Amino acid sequence: MVAGALSPDSTLPVVITTGEPAGIGPELTLMLAAHGQLPANTVAVGDPAMLRQRAVALGLNVSVVECVPGESPNGAKGLPVWPVTLNQPATPGVLDPANADYVLATLALAVDACQRDLAAAMVTAPLHKGVIIEGGYSGFTGHTEWLRDACGVDEVVMMLATDAALHAALPSWQGSGDLRVALVTTHLPLRNVADAITFERVTRISRLLVADLQRQFGIAKPRIAVCGLNPHAGEDGHLGREELDIIIPALDALRAEGMDILGPLPADTLFTPRHLAGVDAVLAMYHDQGLAVLKYAGFGQAANITLGLPLVRTSVDHGTALDLAGKGVADPGSLKVAITLARRLAAQRLSAKSPD
Amino acid sequence: MVAGALSPDSTLPVVITTGEPAGIGPELTLMLAAHGQLPANTVAVGDPAMLRQRAVALGLNVSVVECVPGESPNGAKGLPVWPVTLNQPATPGVLDPANADYVLATLALAVDACQRDLAAAMVTAPLHKGVIIEGGYSGFTGHTEWLRDACGVDEVVMMLATDAALHAALPSWQGSGDLRVALVTTHLPLRNVADAITFERVTRISRLLVADLQRQFGIAKPRIAVCGLNPHAGEDGHLGREELDIIIPALDALRAEGMDILGPLPADTLFTPRHLAGVDAVLAMYHDQGLAVLKYAGFGQAANITLGLPLVRTSVDHGTALDLAGKGVADPGSLKVAITLARRLAAQRLSAKSPD
Repeated sequence: MVAGALSPDSTLPVVITTGEPAGIGPELTLMLAAHGQLPANTVAVGDPAMLRQRAVALGLNVSVVECVPGESPNGAKGLPVWPVTLNQPATPGVLDPANADYVLATLALAVDACQRDLAAAMVTAPLHKGVIIEGGYSGFTGHTEWLRDACGVDEVVMMLATDAALHAALPSWQGSGDLRVALVTTHLPLRNVADAITFERVTRISRLLVADLQRQFGIAKPRIAVCGLNPHAGEDGHLGREELDIIIPALDALRAEGMDILGPLPADTLFTPRHLAGVDAVLAMYHDQGLAVLKYAGFGQAANITLGLPLVRTSVDHGTALDLAGKGVADPGSLKVAITLARRLAAQRLSAKSPD
Repeated sequence: MVAGALSPDSTLPVVITTGEPAGIGPELTLMLAAHGQLPANTVAVGDPAMLRQRAVALGLNVSVVECVPGESPNGAKGLPVWPVTLNQPATPGVLDPANADYVLATLALAVDACQRDLAAAMVTAPLHKGVIIEGGYSGFTGHTEWLRDACGVDEVVMMLATDAALHAALPSWQGSGDLRVALVTTHLPLRNVADAITFERVTRISRLLVADLQRQFGIAKPRIAVCGLNPHAGEDGHLGREELDIIIPALDALRAEGMDILGPLPADTLFTPRHLAGVDAVLAMYHDQGLAVLKYAGFGQAANITLGLPLVRTSVDHGTALDLAGKGVADPGSLKVAITLARRLAAQRLSAKSPD
């Protein structure tokens, strides 16, 4: 099982969990492999028979090669796959709760491989929350929370990043050419957002963000730009008091800890060249305040990174797209960005660890 | 007074109200004039002595030439100015409530000229709301509402637009190369936004938007893309019910009236190439949802257009910047976009009227 085992170095593979078998995850992986766009030393986790079937149905010339964690996939021609077997055959576009176990097993395998230093990082293709719940996991609320619990940490931060290097047309206002946006709150109805912005939450999320920009991105002293909650960042209390009562005191406390923090700034001022210059990440107060700009900047192709985990995890920025599944028309751009980014983050963590 | 009166045609000037005399409005106007960037046939409204003084202090080579509405400014060398006299001399950066009257008088002059067909359009440089209130106008809430009341209409819509033609680097996803974003709600604390989204408001604002895209922009059948209120546009009610209960029924009612409406879509899906293609304007539910993207897309330089008025009014997208005033360092980019756009809109309205 561990014949040809790898040392915990940069030759470790990046693992893609192919996600919901009725969604677009399997075919996006196959499309990258067929078109020579899958970075070297990448393996997929999923049902090999399903992947072979899907490749044939879409006319994709990919040979699916089964292997196991700890075996080098580099020698394999085609797409190396760590096998997990479906409970029921999967049809594109048709959800089946009987396969909820299967989806979670692919995640468990990837986490285990990362934790045992048999994988450098994991990249998750989309799963379908509703069908996992229907399949018997009533407490399931999504990839990110499942990974948080599987890794035994208390809190994680959702950050999205563009990969400007893939899009020459992108304005590169920042040194790196990338825009990164992390969120204080994520999937809340808009009417609940204001009450979720607390001193404790703003400081906790900011600390996690800064720590992982250092650890995963190798930025020694990250500069963070923080949005206000209200339009015009409250305009001195005329358009809301959360900036005066919560956000400004929280940012002052973080500055007193030595963090380099800009803001709170109005969101429509912050996302302009003058303010983004030199900023390593933007912290937005809520989902649409930050992600509408990020997706625009990334031409709809960005990757999601979970900060605060003991392993590197990136993800596509889209869902299962059941209506597109099985047609071969979905865009693998975000998956490619997510893999590229995972590889880069894994290399950074390795170089940070290397003296020991 | 009306010697050399002009017929109501495209030779009418565009009028800039130079706004708060302690702010950056006067110098932005002078900077454009000094650098040959003021489009032909543009006049300013303000105190000629103050403008001359400001030009000298900043070393700007501009001759301020007084003229009156109805006189052609085309013959004038330098910056033609319709004079309104300050109550008190103005110092950059120092607000004086004694000049509140003066600021409103410049607006009244411009509105009057537009209504009497002595001006093609008006462009407003920023004023300072607080000092107008302090100057005795306790009910004053801003340019837009003042113009609404001065023109005797019930409701107006705030829309911002980029002018991509000025920025060759901008991705031009739409036919026009421009991105336009109108708002259902504007300057509300975020915690009040959800309750302000009503069936009545969404339909009323949408109708005004479509009517003025036809009348002012000459788009025969505008296509509007509408954002949801909640993240993921509510995800079928899991992340908020306003889409199901209010927005979807409102958009269905508008479609039944023959409007071409896309949505509601998640804001972070809508602002991507696939969805923006062929869209004439985006309707966002609230300020930061739409304007963060717009300002990013416009490199911080966009213009504000008030829809629903019987005259053409555009505006800069920034404030008085008292900290920058008198230094000659403020960026006149948005003022230039606003003038260019006002001229284009005025020409469009004229051509729409021309057969009669």
